Amino acid sequence: MRNLKILSSIALPLLMGASISTAIAAQNAPKVEVFLSPSKVIEDTAADEWAEISPSDLMVMILEKDAKGRDRRVIIQLLPPPFSQSWVGNMRTLTAARWYDGISVVRVQDNYVTQWGDPNGEEEGQSKKLPDNLNNAGENEYVQKIEDVKINELKLADPYAQNNGFYAGWPMASSGKEIWPTHCYSMVGVGRGLSPDTGTGAELYTVIGHAPRHLDRNIALVGRIISGMEHLSSLPRGTGPLGFYETPEERTKILSVRMGDEVADLSQYEYLSTDSASFAKYAKARQNRHDQFFIRPAGGADICNISVPIRVKK
Amino acid sequence: MRNLKILSSIALPLLMGASISTAIAAQNAPKVEVFLSPSKVIEDTAADEWAEISPSDLMVMILEKDAKGRDRRVIIQLLPPPFSQSWVGNMRTLTAARWYDGISVVRVQDNYVTQWGDPNGEEEGQSKKLPDNLNNAGENEYVQKIEDVKINELKLADPYAQNNGFYAGWPMASSGKEIWPTHCYSMVGVGRGLSPDTGTGAELYTVIGHAPRHLDRNIALVGRIISGMEHLSSLPRGTGPLGFYETPEERTKILSVRMGDEVADLSQYEYLSTDSASFAKYAKARQNRHDQFFIRPAGGADICNISVPIRVKK
Repeated sequence: MRNLKILSSIALPLLMGASISTAIAAQNAPKVEVFLSPSKVIEDTAADEWAEISPSDLMVMILEKDAKGRDRRVIIQLLPPPFSQSWVGNMRTLTAARWYDGISVVRVQDNYVTQWGDPNGEEEGQSKKLPDNLNNAGENEYVQKIEDVKINELKLADPYAQNNGFYAGWPMASSGKEIWPTHCYSMVGVGRGLSPDTGTGAELYTVIGHAPRHLDRNIALVGRIISGMEHLSSLPRGTGPLGFYETPEERTKILSVRMGDEVADLSQYEYLSTDSASFAKYAKARQNRHDQFFIRPAGGADICNISVPIRVKK
Repeated sequence: MRNLKILSSIALPLLMGASISTAIAAQNAPKVEVFLSPSKVIEDTAADEWAEISPSDLMVMILEKDAKGRDRRVIIQLLPPPFSQSWVGNMRTLTAARWYDGISVVRVQDNYVTQWGDPNGEEEGQSKKLPDNLNNAGENEYVQKIEDVKINELKLADPYAQNNGFYAGWPMASSGKEIWPTHCYSMVGVGRGLSPDTGTGAELYTVIGHAPRHLDRNIALVGRIISGMEHLSSLPRGTGPLGFYETPEERTKILSVRMGDEVADLSQYEYLSTDSASFAKYAKARQNRHDQFFIRPAGGADICNISVPIRVKK
């Protein structure tokens, strides 16, 4: 049964699908649009459509080895200015102070978040001392005025926003007056208490389920996982309230966090520029799947289902 | 730091938040709507707003014990008529024939699906013989005409549909002419090859990431996981193409699958009727979060973020 191997054709090269579309297009040109598969669009990109990610904007987080003794390395890309830079600055400070070294994954709530922080954060007198020079990130930098950020608009139907699109490689939503990053899968945000507290960046989470977009504009997003997401998404779920682990033994220790430019063997990562012609084609292909696998293309897509292609530089 | 414990208040009783809203409402009545937290709405439901799920519409799947020797039980609720009943019938046949006993989880692709089936399905002459009496599920029963299914419309913005709502406890999307169930987190569908093949129901998957709604109307949905989802979502991701496991040792064996009415110790499950007044309130509360945690309510929600409350009957 070949079925087992083909639930989705996302990762398959689908040249035949593309050829058929091309043939149809030729017959009816110029009316019919040629729809390539998303993977074929990526394959056809030019080298100069990819933008390098500076290692200084990456955080490399090493978890303790798994039960089978395998390494677990997670790479976080930091959100670019002007978004959330107070918290991003705090994260750089916390990394420089080695504050994150030795903290743990404390919470894994199914279809929601994996969260890490000081496991003794709630014990009076036991919590790890924070550096003195953290920014007071009280201002809502995670929402910006529309005049200050130019997104390439996609205008996808969106129950959480009037408009949406991409800015410098990141998914964004817009109210027409304001722009903010969206809580898609693998995005990283700042844990906090009840509003108007905004957190420091010492406690972080990543989205491991369906995008909790109701958190948009309520929590500071600061980055996203670009490698090793599976080490956070496949952890055992916590059985306490909100998915917190009930015993210290269940936690996964974070051995170290370093900035990318401190890590000698780090690959150079790059993302498909969201201003490139190929990205526009890719976004269209994600909305109109004409791969061999598909019977009915959707004619639209959730902003969180147009994940920005990121790869190790070739 | 209390922050650790409160990223979200989804599961917390938020009486204080409700009281504040009520006070504001009293000052300005009747203009201001009282927004309760989703959990408070659930707390306030009447017993007769809950509908029992018949054990005969449940499949109980026992996975081999985990590395720590703990039981893993997964409960699948089958999609009700008129949707996908050929495949649902096949699944009953396969269960009665004990065909699923001894198959394995063969694929776990991060932010996509966990899939189970015959691990030798692709080996010529090695595959498990299917029962003779499986239905030919060639017709697209997973899409129904709008005349035949009455949904309570929510009209949430939806990039994959013109309209949406709920039918008998299930999320549905609509084109105005047709109605179909949506690929939300934990929904179960039928693995298949390239279209127009539709699969038999011998190979199944569940959604473990952001809703892949582009699969709507392309694959037969047949059910959803109502208990034990974490046993499928937290499995190690496969490292082969499309997340298939590369070695037999990585697979998780399925010891048995039984219909709910064959299982003596099964709890009685019930769901909040999606036609009830409380469900309407709940859907509204999910769109307008006024819990203490939230600064800005979204004023809308993704159909997949309005998960139908399901619980063990009290």
